[in-house]
Amino acid sequence: MGMGRIGARETKEPTLMDRALDQARAAAVAGEVPVGAVLVEAATGRILALTRNRIEELKDPTAHAEILAIRAGSAALGSPRLAGCDLYVTLEPCPMCAAAIAFARLRRVYYGAGDPKGGAVDHGVRLFDQPTCHHRPEVYGGIGETEAAGLLREFFRARR
Amino acid sequence: MGMGRIGARETKEPTLMDRALDQARAAAVAGEVPVGAVLVEAATGRILALTRNRIEELKDPTAHAEILAIRAGSAALGSPRLAGCDLYVTLEPCPMCAAAIAFARLRRVYYGAGDPKGGAVDHGVRLFDQPTCHHRPEVYGGIGETEAAGLLREFFRARR
Repeated sequence: MGMGRIGARETKEPTLMDRALDQARAAAVAGEVPVGAVLVEAATGRILALTRNRIEELKDPTAHAEILAIRAGSAALGSPRLAGCDLYVTLEPCPMCAAAIAFARLRRVYYGAGDPKGGAVDHGVRLFDQPTCHHRPEVYGGIGETEAAGLLREFFRARR
Repeated sequence: MGMGRIGARETKEPTLMDRALDQARAAAVAGEVPVGAVLVEAATGRILALTRNRIEELKDPTAHAEILAIRAGSAALGSPRLAGCDLYVTLEPCPMCAAAIAFARLRRVYYGAGDPKGGAVDHGVRLFDQPTCHHRPEVYGGIGETEAAGLLREFFRARR
């Protein structure tokens, strides 16, 4: 991060993707693949969940940031359907998470880094484009991509 | 179920798919789409999880029988990887569950009814056949299919 951004960081409110990136950093510190997510109720701006990958910590292969965000959001709203909610996640969702997003009827998905190997939104099976997909959220990719991809690169470099 | 089967049912040990079908019936009684699952440790035959769809009950869109079985199995074995385990499930897994099965490295998947609309194993995105899929379990479809499909048909007919 260049010196020129310091002033901006002091005066600017962190964005929701900034908060997802904070979660991704916390995941890396915990030895998890650095992916973070924020689930927000669009109409109110209320944050329903701040989550990160916790696969190793929870001994749970489904504990991706997105799944944990959806589960927490559903618990908060008392409903398995989250039609008025938006998800911010630092990495393009995998098929498991993309399908969960469709089941939850999320309104929008903002993601950071694209994932040609594991992604299922704009790569791989492109789940939301399948004729059998019942709900396609609006998708905005590449938000905070540089930072999100940098975290992942750094994490895998350090482990090699 | 015909009268002719009563004798057989009295003397025969229930199979693992029979137990998954019992879970599916319990789901229907609870107003959930009737899908049930059993996770078993292959080497010992130890049943790690008996689960059913609990989406409405838990207010959780990810609470499919397979996801709950994998989470329970991971908790029982203290690991997010279940390489020596087999899953019996009454319906062909969806993309969310198929991806979770791959992440969990399950050895085998036995499923009942095929699901042309929602399945992701032998229909739809055929997730395990994707080049980006890191683990493909052995898959055996059509086990207990008639009964599994009948339960689903009956459930949706009653709700119309």
